[in-house]
Amino acid sequence: MTRTAFFISDGTGITAESLGRSLLAQFENVEIRMLTKPYIDTVEKAHDLVQVINGAAVSDGEQPIIIDTIVDGAIRQVIREAEGFKIDIFSTFLEPLEQELATHSSYTVGRTHSIGKDEVYMDRIHSVHFALDNDDGARTHQYDKADVILIGVSRCGKTPTSLYLALQFGIRAANYPLTEDDLDEDGSLKLPRALAAHRHKLFGLTIDPRRLAAIRHERRPNSRYSSMDQCVQEVGQAEGLYRQMHIPFIDTTRFSVEEISTRMIAEVGLKRRFSPR
Amino acid sequence: MTRTAFFISDGTGITAESLGRSLLAQFENVEIRMLTKPYIDTVEKAHDLVQVINGAAVSDGEQPIIIDTIVDGAIRQVIREAEGFKIDIFSTFLEPLEQELATHSSYTVGRTHSIGKDEVYMDRIHSVHFALDNDDGARTHQYDKADVILIGVSRCGKTPTSLYLALQFGIRAANYPLTEDDLDEDGSLKLPRALAAHRHKLFGLTIDPRRLAAIRHERRPNSRYSSMDQCVQEVGQAEGLYRQMHIPFIDTTRFSVEEISTRMIAEVGLKRRFSPR
Repeated sequence: MTRTAFFISDGTGITAESLGRSLLAQFENVEIRMLTKPYIDTVEKAHDLVQVINGAAVSDGEQPIIIDTIVDGAIRQVIREAEGFKIDIFSTFLEPLEQELATHSSYTVGRTHSIGKDEVYMDRIHSVHFALDNDDGARTHQYDKADVILIGVSRCGKTPTSLYLALQFGIRAANYPLTEDDLDEDGSLKLPRALAAHRHKLFGLTIDPRRLAAIRHERRPNSRYSSMDQCVQEVGQAEGLYRQMHIPFIDTTRFSVEEISTRMIAEVGLKRRFSPR
Repeated sequence: MTRTAFFISDGTGITAESLGRSLLAQFENVEIRMLTKPYIDTVEKAHDLVQVINGAAVSDGEQPIIIDTIVDGAIRQVIREAEGFKIDIFSTFLEPLEQELATHSSYTVGRTHSIGKDEVYMDRIHSVHFALDNDDGARTHQYDKADVILIGVSRCGKTPTSLYLALQFGIRAANYPLTEDDLDEDGSLKLPRALAAHRHKLFGLTIDPRRLAAIRHERRPNSRYSSMDQCVQEVGQAEGLYRQMHIPFIDTTRFSVEEISTRMIAEVGLKRRFSPR
């Protein structure tokens, strides 16, 4: 028996979906089909959606769960007619907030999205291109402009993390791969020359060697690059370097890119140029 | 007079912040300093945070607003002692949801983040590298594997959108620049040869020429590339191509990358490989 949950918004739907998934994840035993319905910004679209919701109620044999962040009163009124268990985020919280703040709220559609659009856009473009230009050690002469320089072995998550930091927070993240080119005579890794002047900006990523081998295997099956021996050795050398040089680092094995990024920000106090909307 | 709002979570803080910003954006007249406090996952950290919150209450002369998504009961109990106006998302909604679903919820810390981590990670890595490998027309032989191919003039937002689609939704987005190389004898743009076999995957971006000129000016000031004439002409040619070939397109001028991406998904029914957490 499956239920359907609808995350409904007159904007991107990101807030409704994020909240809805967090709430419903607490119910492990219930099978729930989740559908995000963004840009329900006219009464007509709302009427069409009510048909869809009522259809799901019939085919599921259970009333759907409806979680919405619609601001417009007329549109919300239409959604209210749908058959379902409703979690109306704005009416639940806006009224007490109005009392606390002793003012009325402005029910403006998409208000969140119009704040400082231009500056956010420019910061974002700059940060994304910074991450691309400075990916995988491609260039090292812009490190004075970097907010952070991610280091780690090949395929430990440097590139996705750099791009996420750029897109979500406008943080300029370069990344540099640790490779055998920088092995010392004694077999330990030394800090690559390009990084020496920027030690305070370095942040290390590490990963379980088994997981690394699996990831590399997808790229180059049955190669030395993806062998367990090689992965164990490289990860050991990288972690040795972090410890020796007191470079903060995170084990990415159990973490999503969101978690790696937000943990980094919290740990080293990186400054966000803007906030996710 | 400024108030402080705290978005508190035992995880990334993304849900609490997203909801908090949406709610507070409705109060245009109130100046609110917003602070996200992620990874409050021990009673000790919670006690430390309560000190910070109470400090803000004193220095603001107004009680802070506290919005949290903490799941653990003991930690939540500590935060409850802080001085502030509290919006407790989980207690507000979980109890009615438990009744509706006729089951108890599992108060597991970070439950949302542990679902299908491995598959999400692989999909993400693949999609990000797909976007990078197929950025700006760099390669065209993988278009059969693309979910969508973004087209548009230089600096209209193709690259950030491709990367956002990859990171947030695991969608494989290539992008291809429309340039004067593909002008026909009559001065109109023709569909580049590499794209002809993939017409059903094309999605166009367009932009206000004034905005485009401003963006290009940051990159190459006072060049032909950033001149108003050039921008007007290129945008006109691109839109002409979209209309002639019935290619769906979006004007990115007023939209954030989140909005462009979610609108594209809604408009052409792109399939998300995973959902943002």
